[in-house]
Amino acid sequence: MSSQNQTPATFDCIVRDEVLPHDPDIIRAIVESTDFFHPWEVNIAVELAEERLSKGVASGYEFLFADCNGSTDGYVCFGEIPCTRGSYDVYWIAVRRECQGQGLGRRLMQLAELRIQQLAGRRIYLETSGRPDYLPTRTFYERCQYTVAAELPDFYAPGDSKIVYVKCLDT
Amino acid sequence: MSSQNQTPATFDCIVRDEVLPHDPDIIRAIVESTDFFHPWEVNIAVELAEERLSKGVASGYEFLFADCNGSTDGYVCFGEIPCTRGSYDVYWIAVRRECQGQGLGRRLMQLAELRIQQLAGRRIYLETSGRPDYLPTRTFYERCQYTVAAELPDFYAPGDSKIVYVKCLDT
Repeated sequence: MSSQNQTPATFDCIVRDEVLPHDPDIIRAIVESTDFFHPWEVNIAVELAEERLSKGVASGYEFLFADCNGSTDGYVCFGEIPCTRGSYDVYWIAVRRECQGQGLGRRLMQLAELRIQQLAGRRIYLETSGRPDYLPTRTFYERCQYTVAAELPDFYAPGDSKIVYVKCLDT
Repeated sequence: MSSQNQTPATFDCIVRDEVLPHDPDIIRAIVESTDFFHPWEVNIAVELAEERLSKGVASGYEFLFADCNGSTDGYVCFGEIPCTRGSYDVYWIAVRRECQGQGLGRRLMQLAELRIQQLAGRRIYLETSGRPDYLPTRTFYERCQYTVAAELPDFYAPGDSKIVYVKCLDT
């Protein structure tokens, strides 16, 4: 795996939108590899894929996977927010730890945005924590040109705000 | 029913937190009676009660019903927001059309707030539309001393913003 770290970003991965039966396990491995999420958060990530497998498109969850040299190295999960017309949430985006820093996350985000645009999406929302340890996440979103739409102090816990990012696709 | 319109607010209703098998039908009747919601919104209101019946407390949905003289005239549905510690959402509050204007909605809201406080809730959030026809809803929330925490333009649809209200229980 260490050789992959030195590989420049080539994006020669195959992007796949079909969710396969082994994807919940793959998602667990990717999300756990980041060392960033609580076990219960990992479970939620896995459950979204399980729900997609059991309910299909009706689940409301769309996925894109980056299959790179026989390994699924990252994925993004998004969907239209219920009760809206054209507002999408990116529920999850994660890249396998040893594949980070090569632009794969940003590429997955761009592909999700393209797909959302094709689906007549107008707005994309991202929610994250305002905690200092989430600075890399917020920096990533800002580099992807998302702007802060709202901040709700103490939302997740005392001292732990929720920050809502948005990108407008129609302006 | 017209005689009920003239009855002053006495709040001699029995408040019930147990969800019974016929409550999804009752909720449908209450929510439809308001003439305020789309059919698919009514279905969502009903589904929350069905989920509570099938999954119990694990559903994350708590209910309070106002049983008044043999008729369930209003209800409120709330729950802790997943991935938060002590942030609650009031998902739904509705009063049968012919029983409105007697303070039953505000009483239900107060009882929900009391229950949330007992459950160690710190914040209560309400989400609604910024559309002109939702002015009565926003006025009701403001009279219940909720303040605007965020506004997301064009969230529900072009020209239809989402307004997030909050009440802090710990300040």
